[in-house]
Amino acid sequence: MKTAKMRTVLMSEMTWREYAQALERDPVVFIPTGALEQHGPHLPMAVDYLLPTAIAREVAEQVGGVVAAPVTYGYKSMTRSAGGPFFPGSTGLDGHTLSLVIRDIIRELVRHGARRICVLDGNYENLWFLNEGIDLAMREVGDKGVRIMCLQHWEFLTEETLAQVFPDGYPGIELEHAAVLETSLMMHFHPQLVLTQQVPDNAAADAPCYDVWPPRREWVAPEGSLISAKGASPAKGALIAAQYTRDISAAVEREFYATDAVAAQA
Amino acid sequence: MKTAKMRTVLMSEMTWREYAQALERDPVVFIPTGALEQHGPHLPMAVDYLLPTAIAREVAEQVGGVVAAPVTYGYKSMTRSAGGPFFPGSTGLDGHTLSLVIRDIIRELVRHGARRICVLDGNYENLWFLNEGIDLAMREVGDKGVRIMCLQHWEFLTEETLAQVFPDGYPGIELEHAAVLETSLMMHFHPQLVLTQQVPDNAAADAPCYDVWPPRREWVAPEGSLISAKGASPAKGALIAAQYTRDISAAVEREFYATDAVAAQA
Amino acid sequence: MKTAKMRTVLMSEMTWREYAQALERDPVVFIPTGALEQHGPHLPMAVDYLLPTAIAREVAEQVGGVVAAPVTYGYKSMTRSAGGPFFPGSTGLDGHTLSLVIRDIIRELVRHGARRICVLDGNYENLWFLNEGIDLAMREVGDKGVRIMCLQHWEFLTEETLAQVFPDGYPGIELEHAAVLETSLMMHFHPQLVLTQQVPDNAAADAPCYDVWPPRREWVAPEGSLISAKGASPAKGALIAAQYTRDISAAVEREFYATDAVAAQA
Amino acid sequence: MKTAKMRTVLMSEMTWREYAQALERDPVVFIPTGALEQHGPHLPMAVDYLLPTAIAREVAEQVGGVVAAPVTYGYKSMTRSAGGPFFPGSTGLDGHTLSLVIRDIIRELVRHGARRICVLDGNYENLWFLNEGIDLAMREVGDKGVRIMCLQHWEFLTEETLAQVFPDGYPGIELEHAAVLETSLMMHFHPQLVLTQQVPDNAAADAPCYDVWPPRREWVAPEGSLISAKGASPAKGALIAAQYTRDISAAVEREFYATDAVAAQA
Amino acid sequence: MKTAKMRTVLMSEMTWREYAQALERDPVVFIPTGALEQHGPHLPMAVDYLLPTAIAREVAEQVGGVVAAPVTYGYKSMTRSAGGPFFPGSTGLDGHTLSLVIRDIIRELVRHGARRICVLDGNYENLWFLNEGIDLAMREVGDKGVRIMCLQHWEFLTEETLAQVFPDGYPGIELEHAAVLETSLMMHFHPQLVLTQQVPDNAAADAPCYDVWPPRREWVAPEGSLISAKGASPAKGALIAAQYTRDISAAVEREFYATDAVAAQA
Amino acid sequence: MKTAKMRTVLMSEMTWREYAQALERDPVVFIPTGALEQHGPHLPMAVDYLLPTAIAREVAEQVGGVVAAPVTYGYKSMTRSAGGPFFPGSTGLDGHTLSLVIRDIIRELVRHGARRICVLDGNYENLWFLNEGIDLAMREVGDKGVRIMCLQHWEFLTEETLAQVFPDGYPGIELEHAAVLETSLMMHFHPQLVLTQQVPDNAAADAPCYDVWPPRREWVAPEGSLISAKGASPAKGALIAAQYTRDISAAVEREFYATDAVAAQA
Repeated sequence: MKTAKMRTVLMSEMTWREYAQALERDPVVFIPTGALEQHGPHLPMAVDYLLPTAIAREVAEQVGGVVAAPVTYGYKSMTRSAGGPFFPGSTGLDGHTLSLVIRDIIRELVRHGARRICVLDGNYENLWFLNEGIDLAMREVGDKGVRIMCLQHWEFLTEETLAQVFPDGYPGIELEHAAVLETSLMMHFHPQLVLTQQVPDNAAADAPCYDVWPPRREWVAPEGSLISAKGASPAKGALIAAQYTRDISAAVEREFYATDAVAAQA
Repeated sequence: MKTAKMRTVLMSEMTWREYAQALERDPVVFIPTGALEQHGPHLPMAVDYLLPTAIAREVAEQVGGVVAAPVTYGYKSMTRSAGGPFFPGSTGLDGHTLSLVIRDIIRELVRHGARRICVLDGNYENLWFLNEGIDLAMREVGDKGVRIMCLQHWEFLTEETLAQVFPDGYPGIELEHAAVLETSLMMHFHPQLVLTQQVPDNAAADAPCYDVWPPRREWVAPEGSLISAKGASPAKGALIAAQYTRDISAAVEREFYATDAVAAQA
Repeated sequence: MKTAKMRTVLMSEMTWREYAQALERDPVVFIPTGALEQHGPHLPMAVDYLLPTAIAREVAEQVGGVVAAPVTYGYKSMTRSAGGPFFPGSTGLDGHTLSLVIRDIIRELVRHGARRICVLDGNYENLWFLNEGIDLAMREVGDKGVRIMCLQHWEFLTEETLAQVFPDGYPGIELEHAAVLETSLMMHFHPQLVLTQQVPDNAAADAPCYDVWPPRREWVAPEGSLISAKGASPAKGALIAAQYTRDISAAVEREFYATDAVAAQA
Repeated sequence: MKTAKMRTVLMSEMTWREYAQALERDPVVFIPTGALEQHGPHLPMAVDYLLPTAIAREVAEQVGGVVAAPVTYGYKSMTRSAGGPFFPGSTGLDGHTLSLVIRDIIRELVRHGARRICVLDGNYENLWFLNEGIDLAMREVGDKGVRIMCLQHWEFLTEETLAQVFPDGYPGIELEHAAVLETSLMMHFHPQLVLTQQVPDNAAADAPCYDVWPPRREWVAPEGSLISAKGASPAKGALIAAQYTRDISAAVEREFYATDAVAAQA
Repeated sequence: MKTAKMRTVLMSEMTWREYAQALERDPVVFIPTGALEQHGPHLPMAVDYLLPTAIAREVAEQVGGVVAAPVTYGYKSMTRSAGGPFFPGSTGLDGHTLSLVIRDIIRELVRHGARRICVLDGNYENLWFLNEGIDLAMREVGDKGVRIMCLQHWEFLTEETLAQVFPDGYPGIELEHAAVLETSLMMHFHPQLVLTQQVPDNAAADAPCYDVWPPRREWVAPEGSLISAKGASPAKGALIAAQYTRDISAAVEREFYATDAVAAQA
Repeated sequence: MKTAKMRTVLMSEMTWREYAQALERDPVVFIPTGALEQHGPHLPMAVDYLLPTAIAREVAEQVGGVVAAPVTYGYKSMTRSAGGPFFPGSTGLDGHTLSLVIRDIIRELVRHGARRICVLDGNYENLWFLNEGIDLAMREVGDKGVRIMCLQHWEFLTEETLAQVFPDGYPGIELEHAAVLETSLMMHFHPQLVLTQQVPDNAAADAPCYDVWPPRREWVAPEGSLISAKGASPAKGALIAAQYTRDISAAVEREFYATDAVAAQA
């Protein structure tokens, strides 16, 4: 899969000729998707698009891929998973809008000639609207051999990584908003954007197993983080990043290069 | 909350006058949502709307509520969670369509005078499009004191129930499609619709932590169930149903009657 | 057309394997469409989806067809034809929502392999949005030999039936909401859901030949029925049902099996 | 209602100042809606917007109203009612498109200050999408006292007129496409646009009571008219036009001036 | 390109047979698009669809084309270019609505067999929504050799014409709303619709290079015209019309007949 | 307007508390909008969102504003203005999608409490869909005193700047794609992203005054730039940037702080 080194894997920084040249290799094109959303008292609101962009970049360098411009706005923050509407700054698109954005981008990448596309998401709430946008795009592009993968980076966490990052036990992904994982990754990829003096040490959020409208303020701590981020460190961020890069690269290679696609009953 | 007994809690079986009378109590109106979707070799394709309708009925009887007609079609089956497009019969709406259906129904219930609405879902893939439909409806109905709750019944499973239903260990909700939980509940609520000779005993599905398009047939067993349903029984179904009724009723009472709504920062 | 007996013609009660087996015969798949809507002081609000489901079931048994799950919510009640917004319980979808629901269901049935689809409607106001949904679906599925039929059951009433049901003269279909026809059919198919003590004997509604917004309460009787239903009886219901089954079956056989489709100028 | 004579009742021919002046009287604003659609071998394809424009003009002159620009494109021709896709020239909008057009126009008229709006339709297939567009507009404009009426001109035909126009018996409105009524009205309002040598004398169309896709060519005569138009004459057109003007004016006066609006249960 | 003379080039005045006959020549079908919008104290609000209809008619007569019915409603008036919402009568569609109208009309013309379509616009604000509607239509109709052209008539103004029409210097197209160009053309094509006593002589509008919401009343003169129209005359209108006809006809011939289409990189 | 210095004006780099604090001053919130689009052989494809982000940052620092995350994908490249579909990499959203994105972002900013919003665009083709998105948002947010401004940076070019940047004469904005203006600004703001060896010196594009579908390759030079960019320099970029910052800041101050809003006739 590896080829002559490109100047950059970032499509946003390429000229069209560089991109055209990259397309000749039939590369995986990554679409980092995120959100502008509160991430506690210590992290910038761009976390959800900065992290998938950084991870996609590393994976693309491994697999000879290209990283499209990040989708900077995503689906609405839900109270249980990201604090909901209680924190100014969380700026959510309607679900249909997000699906259309993804559909349109994929339609265009396919028009360029891309046949392998990986949506790499960093905002938990985006997933189903991304799925739907991909489905709408697949319906449109039809039978051109296009293959698409959609993943959220934290889904790749291994037991081994969790054991190292959470020596006192993993509180579970449902509390990991602006907490140890995201904070560590930001400390690794964008240390200058972390307010290390403000890393919160709040108690775990205690929300029930359902949602309500209007949402309840008391379901999330005043800080906006769902649990303490005190255990975060740049070293943990590096560790997680390295594992993600390794395992996401492997999955990408497996899905796009090693496996024959099995057509769905159409 | 209890009041003079109604002839039925099912809005579909009420006359308009009975419904008008029920509305005078300011009841919780439940909207059961599901799908027409494959559920293995032994369960009917209506499982996902039959179960929430049955559960909503029991809860409504507890809390003096009303159960609207079930939404019989839901979001598309995903390969990892329900077999995807490989099994004829799974009949999915586009995400936006489902959101609009929910938005419209809520708009109408509010027009009738309902102020407490509970969407009770039985199809895993529906959730985010239900959330979005509710959000669109709340945006429309504005400041009328409407409160909405959205839940999926399996989220209420307790450790205690799981211990009784899965004496050999719970394989996890992600494999519970057409498996022990749904089969037991169907044996309890609709025994005549279960093909007991066909209860599958397949190995657990082994799908990765991401989705691909076109989907892969090998991610799901030929039967369509994600894991063996052999452990199912009517008694387990009764047990689960009783716990759901108890705990969902409690949550409904708590959210709609015991708690003062906290308005979102609007 | 007749084939080895299926356990059920109801897709909702079939397993996916039974449905797959049924599809091998290239059957007509019926989609019953209705509404949740007031039907006078004596009929349940599900009349409009219960009747087409029951009729589709009988026709499917005649022609070897399959009946998909009913579409339980339909277009908005209009004042002149069903009482409009004056009766709590009438729960209408926006027209576009209904069209999308039908489009999506047809798209999925075609994906399953169905090539003969009959939309059998029980809610007068649905018709044009069903037509449009079918048209949108046909545009999408393209040139796969799919043939679709759309009908409303009362359109099949014969002079002979009318003479028997209305010995004193037929007041016309425009007044037949929750009146003799629907009441008789409900007495036949779902006697336990008819409040026989409440059968109304109101005067005929007297609405003009146009619509107005906001609608006028005085255009419809307080009962919600457009004319007296006193003449209804189970025997009349049986008579009508038998004639519908015979004539709709004949039309279905004629359109789907006896006639070569004539392609539209595309 | 009558006031100082305007130069014209046609909004399209007014300057904005004339329109502003007209609005001061709180007039009924008519929106003529039609279609570009085949009308047999003898009538121009604009019939469906020319006739409601002409009728609206006469009514507006009676009641002191204003006639907005005609909506020149409407919903798709159906085979049973207008020949369907078999005749080049019939140019149909999607239903949702038409609803949005009407919604937008009404929103704007209300913004201008209009409070009485009458949609006067000339294309049978438009009705439900007009209804829906009006409903969407009413939802948006909210509680501003706006009142809307929607009518199709042929609904106003009286027994007396029918007796004069069809001395040999009225074949029924379902066959009146490009037939005696429309031809007579065109001979009256736009004689120069009628090809009198081409007035068809075909047999009545013989379509069943349902629709099919793809549509059937044999359901409509080769001429495109659904029945003979031979009985048409300018005198009959004048007669019909006079009756329409009288009775539509009366209905408009009654609905917008003589009746207190009864608010729907909102 | 010239052929046996048709009775009319206006599709709205043709019978379907005449249109079918015209289609045999594979003609250019023109879609005149405009708006109902204020045009100063002296011009009727239909200017924006009357002018492109008149011009399309002349061009169609030159090139053997057909003129479809005008699209009478267009995009919203902007304050800087047409006075915005400050003048009653301007009746704007939402952008998406207009795009759908154009998409639908083109889809239908292509279904009729038209392969050369020219959207001829008369409302400045329409352009991008027309472009988008065309793009949506092209996506749908796919690979059928359809070619579409979209133009706004004033873009064809030559230096020579401007020198004759504006002997004292051309103030620029951005001020030409209800001013010398449109007034002269209306005096030429529809003299009876111009209130010659009301031709305004206001100072030029002085708006900045951006837009604001809510819009500012002071950006446009009270008359609604953006600059004096005093220099208008029928003779200038004739001159402009003749030049448009000549040059638009030449462009149409060049694009549809003289040039081989170059397919976009698809 | 000036206030205590914030750590950053970039909302994406702020924590939610910093943003909340910034909102207390009732600042102008800028939304930079652009596209991922080819910009000749020498510029990266992110130019259209990098430039408005950089300019918004400078203006925000002047006026005490906040810069939201850039909208990284915009409307489709048109052949005449940016090379159209002939250059891989140009990745356009549908117009409606872009309008919805802007509508949603504005809705959310207003929910946060922002009342002064400036959309600062860097992609010519975006304008009308931005306008429409703003209009849709204004319709939704209603009467909350929200004021919005929408501008494209090149509209602020002064004669003086043009004289300095183009000593040999300004070829006109319609050719300025990837040419002297954009290249100079990129050399100033992002010198490391300019391939200075690749600055093109192509002849001016020669496109007519209309658009065609399918588009014509010959309307744009093979390089993708519409005219030579040889005259670009970092110094010119600094000059332009300084003028933009000065004049856009002045316009922003004038519109949001110095002027009383004049409400539109609503």
